[in-house]
Amino acid sequence: MSKKLTKRSEDYSKWYNELVVKADLAENSGVRGMMVIKPYGYAIWEKVQAELDKRFKETGHENAYFPLLIPKSYFTKEASHVEGFAKECAVVTHYRLKTADDGSIIVDEKAKLEEELIIRPTSETIIWDSYRKWIQSYRDLPIKINQWANVMRWEMRTRLFLRTAEFLWQEGHTAHATKEEALEEAQLMHNLYADFLQDFMAIPVIKGEKTENERFGGALNTFTIEALMQDGKALQAGTSHFLGQNFAKAFDVKFTTNEGKQNYVWATSWGVTTRLIGALVMTHSDDQGLVLPPNLAPIQVVIVPIYRNDEQLDAITKVVNKMIIAFKEKNISVKFDNRTTYKPGFKFAEYELKGVPLRIAIGPKDLENGTVELARRDTLTKEFVEQDNLLTKVSNLLVEIQNNLYKKALNFRNEHITKVNSFEEFKRVLENKGGFIAAHWDGTIATEKEIKKLTKATIRCILLDTENEEGKCVLTGAVSKSRVLFAKAY
Amino acid sequence: MSKKLTKRSEDYSKWYNELVVKADLAENSGVRGMMVIKPYGYAIWEKVQAELDKRFKETGHENAYFPLLIPKSYFTKEASHVEGFAKECAVVTHYRLKTADDGSIIVDEKAKLEEELIIRPTSETIIWDSYRKWIQSYRDLPIKINQWANVMRWEMRTRLFLRTAEFLWQEGHTAHATKEEALEEAQLMHNLYADFLQDFMAIPVIKGEKTENERFGGALNTFTIEALMQDGKALQAGTSHFLGQNFAKAFDVKFTTNEGKQNYVWATSWGVTTRLIGALVMTHSDDQGLVLPPNLAPIQVVIVPIYRNDEQLDAITKVVNKMIIAFKEKNISVKFDNRTTYKPGFKFAEYELKGVPLRIAIGPKDLENGTVELARRDTLTKEFVEQDNLLTKVSNLLVEIQNNLYKKALNFRNEHITKVNSFEEFKRVLENKGGFIAAHWDGTIATEKEIKKLTKATIRCILLDTENEEGKCVLTGAVSKSRVLFAKAY
Repeated sequence: MSKKLTKRSEDYSKWYNELVVKADLAENSGVRGMMVIKPYGYAIWEKVQAELDKRFKETGHENAYFPLLIPKSYFTKEASHVEGFAKECAVVTHYRLKTADDGSIIVDEKAKLEEELIIRPTSETIIWDSYRKWIQSYRDLPIKINQWANVMRWEMRTRLFLRTAEFLWQEGHTAHATKEEALEEAQLMHNLYADFLQDFMAIPVIKGEKTENERFGGALNTFTIEALMQDGKALQAGTSHFLGQNFAKAFDVKFTTNEGKQNYVWATSWGVTTRLIGALVMTHSDDQGLVLPPNLAPIQVVIVPIYRNDEQLDAITKVVNKMIIAFKEKNISVKFDNRTTYKPGFKFAEYELKGVPLRIAIGPKDLENGTVELARRDTLTKEFVEQDNLLTKVSNLLVEIQNNLYKKALNFRNEHITKVNSFEEFKRVLENKGGFIAAHWDGTIATEKEIKKLTKATIRCILLDTENEEGKCVLTGAVSKSRVLFAKAY
Repeated sequence: MSKKLTKRSEDYSKWYNELVVKADLAENSGVRGMMVIKPYGYAIWEKVQAELDKRFKETGHENAYFPLLIPKSYFTKEASHVEGFAKECAVVTHYRLKTADDGSIIVDEKAKLEEELIIRPTSETIIWDSYRKWIQSYRDLPIKINQWANVMRWEMRTRLFLRTAEFLWQEGHTAHATKEEALEEAQLMHNLYADFLQDFMAIPVIKGEKTENERFGGALNTFTIEALMQDGKALQAGTSHFLGQNFAKAFDVKFTTNEGKQNYVWATSWGVTTRLIGALVMTHSDDQGLVLPPNLAPIQVVIVPIYRNDEQLDAITKVVNKMIIAFKEKNISVKFDNRTTYKPGFKFAEYELKGVPLRIAIGPKDLENGTVELARRDTLTKEFVEQDNLLTKVSNLLVEIQNNLYKKALNFRNEHITKVNSFEEFKRVLENKGGFIAAHWDGTIATEKEIKKLTKATIRCILLDTENEEGKCVLTGAVSKSRVLFAKAY
């Protein structure tokens, strides 16, 4: 705890890795690429889950659960899906171990599966295999199901929260009678994600569509929300896919319309992952440690007693216990850290590192004066507050901090969208300033790939509300109907 | 929906299988032994989760998440654990697929793992591998962590909810400085489970200890709660294990005590699974379908309009909308089924099958009279209720139904505990009446196994609060210090 973090300006990547571990969010396990999400990190994920789940249900979705393992043959049914997904994945080939003659435990070769099973990298195939049985008539539609689950993609280079072999997520899978309704659903969830990140996580996002090259395997259209990290790199924070009739055709899911016709069903899928916690850390935190928006802070207010003897601690505790009751009535989560084994300075550093939004220190002088010392994590400022005003002050400050973090992140993001008109400018901005680059592109996959090869920047999205400003592609000079956003990305 | 269920008296097992599918709780997937938990079944599981999670947190536990895959070598570290567990399990051997020359998708033999990974059948080993890094001093103790997760055991004979290859559960894993504290924790959770089943699920349970032969692999003591199904078979509904220092020794987890000594850490683990939903179905339901205790019913009250034309439906809807607001203010979950595509009789049958505790029917006559028809699912009785008294009536009935279901199950269970004093009597009761048999046993594993071989009955538990009634073992006649409970079990 005493060891300082690497500064962001020195090595942003190292700062992030250290912070996630030191703030007790997560750590690497003994299994390659798989993380342990520690209680403090998981408590943040639980807040993400609770709020999203509420919003999903308010928009008419239900939860369900589908199998972890998917037969290999299911993946091959949708050609572009298997290309995009199923290659780097964990394959189950046997179902038994046995004790060998030398006493060691080995795989029982007699227990080999006839068909290999894949640990789900995403569940479209297993879910559409079920939907075939559930859907006969227009009366069975729409189906709007979400699943909270673990998934696995065999990533070679992993980083805590940002890219891990196993991660937690939610995946929505909906089935509709018409194209219009499915598109509307994909857009509804796209907007729901954007609002959630902005209102609840204080992370501003850009809404757009992916290029064909960057689409989800099997999708006709992928809507994305893109956030900007403090190092100028973009982070894809959530996607919502319009899948057309691709999965319905692959799994032969038809329904009888009101008029007695047979049609294929229209589909969407959409998801966000524990990656959001990585985005949260990299959007708001600073060289002192985590900075958590009050909405997501497992502890919103910590109270640290300053005392020299038991008598003083007792007197402080009496006053603090009343405060705690008042805070809890207002649904403010509060922790009284009365551990005698650590000194106040150590505790201050710990809660700073862990991003607790407000810290109250209270000692004998404060008891005399009827005050406390109140410190804000976001601005690192302190002030004395009268105990009588404390509850109001704290309630207001929690709202203010939430808003302040959003505004700060929004300003940073807005300052880091740069229009460029030549490839030289493109490279210079990318190199020196980073962030999103709004540039003209000729619309071809070849150009997109060439720019990526030359600069490592990818097209993050085609803006949805883009003005139709014509121009020339920064690379080829060919005609372009509007700008798209490039960036280096996580 | 129109097809009737098999009667319980005809074929209890068939009745159960049909009911789970027809009531839309779950179904088999295309993957052997793995189920799809459908929205209605998952909604019940969410209620189980929410209430248990609240109780875990109130007793000082935090949630976290550990990896799905466990290296094979971890299992072999605790000898009795690997014997009990790791044999029938899903083994991941490869991490990539590839496209073969003929275009088919095959496992890439180049992507073979150096060490096989096991899909967790339970997480003691991966968790204690982490705890070694987390625990140095007595100040790091206790650790009280719970995980909500999926696990997998390669069962050969599977049944929806009762025994599936993959299932959902929670697993608590705690670490303590002393034996006493760990034992206390194991007992605390044992009691928490018993209270939860009784108060919340209306399922009476018997609390006891497992015999050595029936203990969890690696445990020094396994506390169990045993429920009784309507066919007279017992169902183990939850277990809490005192693990001693076994896992601490296997994973070398020591801590420095207050006095500077090095000690191994003491452990517990405890869990309940989606099997609870099977127990719920088999405890309360009848030949008409599910019967759900109000605490666990996704829909507590359904309102079905009876009408001949749109005008009547409009008039009914106006009255119903006011009822809905009143119910929601009291946190009563209500559904107004105004689907025009189905007739009332069809709807009645559907909600009976799905176990909705209360059904309100309202037609033009009721509007005139200011009444509704109110039907109870548990007793299948109906009465007319004045609309002005409806809210109070419904609130009271929901409590009454919850209590009634518990009492009914408790009576059945109490009637099915039979004391026997000879092996002939043992076999006769087991054959003709079923239920729990309280019999003397000589305390040896050999006798326990022999009785199982001869009768299929196992020792469900040694009672905790047993009177020290001495006697003679029903099989061997050897001396016995007290009776234990035998039963055939799920």
